[in-house]
Amino acid sequence: MVRTLGGPDTDRMEALSDGVFAIVLTLLVLQFEVPDVSASELPAAVADQETLLVSYLLSFVVVGLYWIIHHNLFRYIEAHDRILLWLNLLFLLSISFLPYPTELMGVYGTQFAWTLYALNFVLVGVLLTAVWTYAARADFTAGEISDAAARLITIRGLISPAVFVLSIVVATVNLSAAYFVPILIIPAQMVWTRYYQGEIGDSDGE
Amino acid sequence: MVRTLGGPDTDRMEALSDGVFAIVLTLLVLQFEVPDVSASELPAAVADQETLLVSYLLSFVVVGLYWIIHHNLFRYIEAHDRILLWLNLLFLLSISFLPYPTELMGVYGTQFAWTLYALNFVLVGVLLTAVWTYAARADFTAGEISDAAARLITIRGLISPAVFVLSIVVATVNLSAAYFVPILIIPAQMVWTRYYQGEIGDSDGE
Amino acid sequence: MVRTLGGPDTDRMEALSDGVFAIVLTLLVLQFEVPDVSASELPAAVADQETLLVSYLLSFVVVGLYWIIHHNLFRYIEAHDRILLWLNLLFLLSISFLPYPTELMGVYGTQFAWTLYALNFVLVGVLLTAVWTYAARADFTAGEISDAAARLITIRGLISPAVFVLSIVVATVNLSAAYFVPILIIPAQMVWTRYYQGEIGDSDGE
Amino acid sequence: MVRTLGGPDTDRMEALSDGVFAIVLTLLVLQFEVPDVSASELPAAVADQETLLVSYLLSFVVVGLYWIIHHNLFRYIEAHDRILLWLNLLFLLSISFLPYPTELMGVYGTQFAWTLYALNFVLVGVLLTAVWTYAARADFTAGEISDAAARLITIRGLISPAVFVLSIVVATVNLSAAYFVPILIIPAQMVWTRYYQGEIGDSDGE
Repeated sequence: MVRTLGGPDTDRMEALSDGVFAIVLTLLVLQFEVPDVSASELPAAVADQETLLVSYLLSFVVVGLYWIIHHNLFRYIEAHDRILLWLNLLFLLSISFLPYPTELMGVYGTQFAWTLYALNFVLVGVLLTAVWTYAARADFTAGEISDAAARLITIRGLISPAVFVLSIVVATVNLSAAYFVPILIIPAQMVWTRYYQGEIGDSDGE
Repeated sequence: MVRTLGGPDTDRMEALSDGVFAIVLTLLVLQFEVPDVSASELPAAVADQETLLVSYLLSFVVVGLYWIIHHNLFRYIEAHDRILLWLNLLFLLSISFLPYPTELMGVYGTQFAWTLYALNFVLVGVLLTAVWTYAARADFTAGEISDAAARLITIRGLISPAVFVLSIVVATVNLSAAYFVPILIIPAQMVWTRYYQGEIGDSDGE
Repeated sequence: MVRTLGGPDTDRMEALSDGVFAIVLTLLVLQFEVPDVSASELPAAVADQETLLVSYLLSFVVVGLYWIIHHNLFRYIEAHDRILLWLNLLFLLSISFLPYPTELMGVYGTQFAWTLYALNFVLVGVLLTAVWTYAARADFTAGEISDAAARLITIRGLISPAVFVLSIVVATVNLSAAYFVPILIIPAQMVWTRYYQGEIGDSDGE
Repeated sequence: MVRTLGGPDTDRMEALSDGVFAIVLTLLVLQFEVPDVSASELPAAVADQETLLVSYLLSFVVVGLYWIIHHNLFRYIEAHDRILLWLNLLFLLSISFLPYPTELMGVYGTQFAWTLYALNFVLVGVLLTAVWTYAARADFTAGEISDAAARLITIRGLISPAVFVLSIVVATVNLSAAYFVPILIIPAQMVWTRYYQGEIGDSDGE
């Protein structure tokens, strides 16, 4: 009974994480406020919420992407210790903070707001990568994950933060263009998946 | 280890979905604002929230219906891949958006508000049907579900969106009548259940 | 494959219910608004929120009591059909509505507000009893529950609604006294537990 | 069938607790309100929310710490009765109340606000220790936990409340210093862990 720092499961880590994800995904809608106009002006007032809708959809999709990645990583993480619990909590902190910069972005839509918003997503990506890297180094991952695969998964985790850093740079030149930079995550992930399959011989690039 | 795109379970998909459903069901009540009147005027002010109560109850019942359908479909879905995760997330997006058109409807009660509200439910129904159809085609469903049964379940999934499209049409003629159109979901489901049992010989029309 | 109306488990019913309970328990605190006064007046302003605190604590305790009862009943409910799913959803509707009358009560504290508040709890109690009674009659309960035990559990479920009806009556005479009527639930449950043990020979009066 | 007061599992207690923790962790962000200023003043307005950020981070970290402790304690608690359910609910009451004093602290930042805030954390710590102590005395804990270990875990549970009491005292002298007192929890836990390992010969000081 010498080593029980932590334990052989991640059930409650996943339950807490799913709870936080579910709440953040649902809270995002709260930034839509019912306009206070006459009934005839309502369609125009709702159409005016276009910027809000874009930041809402982007946040939902990126949070969804992170849920999928979290879900995928924890299929291979099979044990935990105190440090992993804290790293996961810090990741959840960065996820649960998202509604605030999302609303800032929806209301102001300035370069400053975009920088905060993108920085929040950089933090999200870096912290989830830290969760994975720590778990892999501490041998909490399933035996089937080779060291090479673990390293490649770490690299994948840095794609999304790198793209958001790029979007911050782009925003200093052209703010409207910056909004479209996150779309680069999709082809970058595809390139990574192809490379991963070539290296590891496994089609799981989820 | 060639095929691990996704995995052999749907536990966390169901956990995330239950979380989103629970939050949406509970957030719906937040649209009721405590009236700011004198104590003697409170009963009248509360009685004035009748439209709000109707849209609240309708939303709760339809979201509840979708939870039951989701619950029922996922009893037969036994595996997932990345596409199914995304389809389910899009379905949850449409569910989590509901509090906004519900509140618009409760506050304004115009034809425009009803159109948005009904369109949201059309989206909810179409996306859940897409989840099912994809899962059935990708052979993620339990062996006991025949192709004929899967097709019939797809058709059932389109009943509710079709009824909401109908209600949008009715609203162009008579808005008050449109509110009652969703009630048609009940007999339509019953007809479907009878037909399903005749075709498949299974009483499960849940 | 003739009878699969519903299924042999209640996992997701319990998950959805726990989600709604957790959210309602947590949302109750949102009615406390940070006072907008000078720093020196803050202690007095917070002390003024006493009525709010009482309705908050009462709601938390009664919702907690219903979670315990729900938890206890579903230890014995082992299967479900569509009707049980709907009855449970209606019960959750009544639970998720509670924050509104709680806030009405905290803000106004009139006899009208108390009547709405108490009626909401009557509904909660009656609907949970309906869940149990239906499950027991449909033979979804564990074999160890005799018909006599099931009937006694139904009676217990009506204690709390009866006490809240009584509190509505008391409020017509003396509002302050009505606040204390729910305390009667405690001795009434104790009497029931003693009687149940005598009849059934089981100490589980949870 | 004489003793079934409660039951042989804690699944739903953990599910409800994880739900409440997830919601509280996520609700904390709602206190950040989007400033209502011109776009050029936004950076300064956001920078002004520094006090809010500090109380937000402190609350998130302490709630996270309590989730970890709760998670750890319930790995050893294997059964429950009605009293344990109520003690856990009271603990959740104290957790779910936290967003209010956190916001009070973020907005006012006075000694009075700090006292309320710290008192809430004292309550959280004392109630979780009560959960553990009751479970240990009622023999709901796993056999591997000796009486000596259970007592030491009780003592650990009182570290955090004691530190918050100390911070209330410090706040009467110097408010700014009081904010840093909770940091003492970290070395105190380390000292405890070392002592525990010496006494029990187990490295689990999580």
